[in-house]
Amino acid sequence: MPAHRFFLPSGPPLVTGPLVIGGEEGRHAARVKRLTPGQAVEVLDGQGSIATGSVVAIEKIRGEWAAQVDLASVRHAEPIRPRVVVLCPAPKGDRLPQMIEGLSQVGAASWRPLLTERTVSEPGAAKIDRLQRISEESAKQCGRAWTLSIGPPLAFAEALALPSLVIADASGPAFQPAPDPELNLLVGPEGGWSVPELDAARAAGAAAASFGPHVMRLETAAVVAAALAVRGQRP
Amino acid sequence: MPAHRFFLPSGPPLVTGPLVIGGEEGRHAARVKRLTPGQAVEVLDGQGSIATGSVVAIEKIRGEWAAQVDLASVRHAEPIRPRVVVLCPAPKGDRLPQMIEGLSQVGAASWRPLLTERTVSEPGAAKIDRLQRISEESAKQCGRAWTLSIGPPLAFAEALALPSLVIADASGPAFQPAPDPELNLLVGPEGGWSVPELDAARAAGAAAASFGPHVMRLETAAVVAAALAVRGQRP
Repeated sequence: MPAHRFFLPSGPPLVTGPLVIGGEEGRHAARVKRLTPGQAVEVLDGQGSIATGSVVAIEKIRGEWAAQVDLASVRHAEPIRPRVVVLCPAPKGDRLPQMIEGLSQVGAASWRPLLTERTVSEPGAAKIDRLQRISEESAKQCGRAWTLSIGPPLAFAEALALPSLVIADASGPAFQPAPDPELNLLVGPEGGWSVPELDAARAAGAAAASFGPHVMRLETAAVVAAALAVRGQRP
Repeated sequence: MPAHRFFLPSGPPLVTGPLVIGGEEGRHAARVKRLTPGQAVEVLDGQGSIATGSVVAIEKIRGEWAAQVDLASVRHAEPIRPRVVVLCPAPKGDRLPQMIEGLSQVGAASWRPLLTERTVSEPGAAKIDRLQRISEESAKQCGRAWTLSIGPPLAFAEALALPSLVIADASGPAFQPAPDPELNLLVGPEGGWSVPELDAARAAGAAAASFGPHVMRLETAAVVAAALAVRGQRP
């Protein structure tokens, strides 16, 4: 167990050797976590690289706190298979960031806001940016080598062109894992799919599947469906 | 789809024929949902009974709003099998009621607060009462015939005497459903189990199982583990 995990999503590729970590990550390590030389650390870049090393020094550089670490090894992790992409409307208020955290923890690869007939709110660019930061923070917390990506909104009709489609609906049989390397999961709004949407999904070859015995709220359904899809298909 | 669902957890057994619903459920139906005569309704008691009928009248009785309904049929639903009992520490703040709602939606039978070495907060009687109301409200929303029961706290050592024990831990293999009619799922605190706890669980015959590729927050782990246990074992 490392004493601390750094998350550097926008830096250069991680290589062995010395690394100076400034900015918010450096300040947090120095002032909140109060790391000391010799402590073991892990560094993630959110793109599969996992570096391990130790703290060399915690010091101020040009007036800003920074952590100097020495990376002993860097390995590259494969993304979780199957690659599960969840497409669903954005739930309201705090339930949206909670859903993103849940999707990150269960190992979904990506979330994209889905625009349906009954979708009530479409997240704007500022909210998408904020969700990306929540996703990065969650990756750091749960040790994900690959950050959950937050995609741009997609209209329902366009989503039907994606491969390996599963549409969550109580009309379908219990979800059965298939050995697909990728799965695009459509989860409906609180009011459910419209009849034309369900018809169009079936015509497009999407498999309807149910993910539990009861009606679930949107954010619960999305996280549970992703967990079953990720988990059910692992060897 | 009924126009409205009543939830009467503490009334007499549901029987066909006329029923007057007062109190908060009656006021809500009259003033918020504004039901009108002839509309189809469903009545649940949280103990397996599901009655269907229609509104006869919405009126004030002794100064309080009440809904008069006529129940045409009453059926009794079996509880979800397997009966999944989740035992885990209470997460802090809003994450506790959110977890209860999630457990209710995925079909767990019961939740009991588990007292572990690293448990930080034990819910008191008032909080348990409040969780019971949240569970009832969730049962109404998601159409559960049986309300998720909120049990009294249990010490870890006592929990190990329960049958069909599964302990969620990353050290275990991926959870595999077994055809048990009941499953007692132990989910650990944010800091994880202590080594003596894991040793005692193994000695007691509990099967260690992992429920996903990443570290999950307590409330996510509990809901996802319950969903996999409920779902994985259905025919």
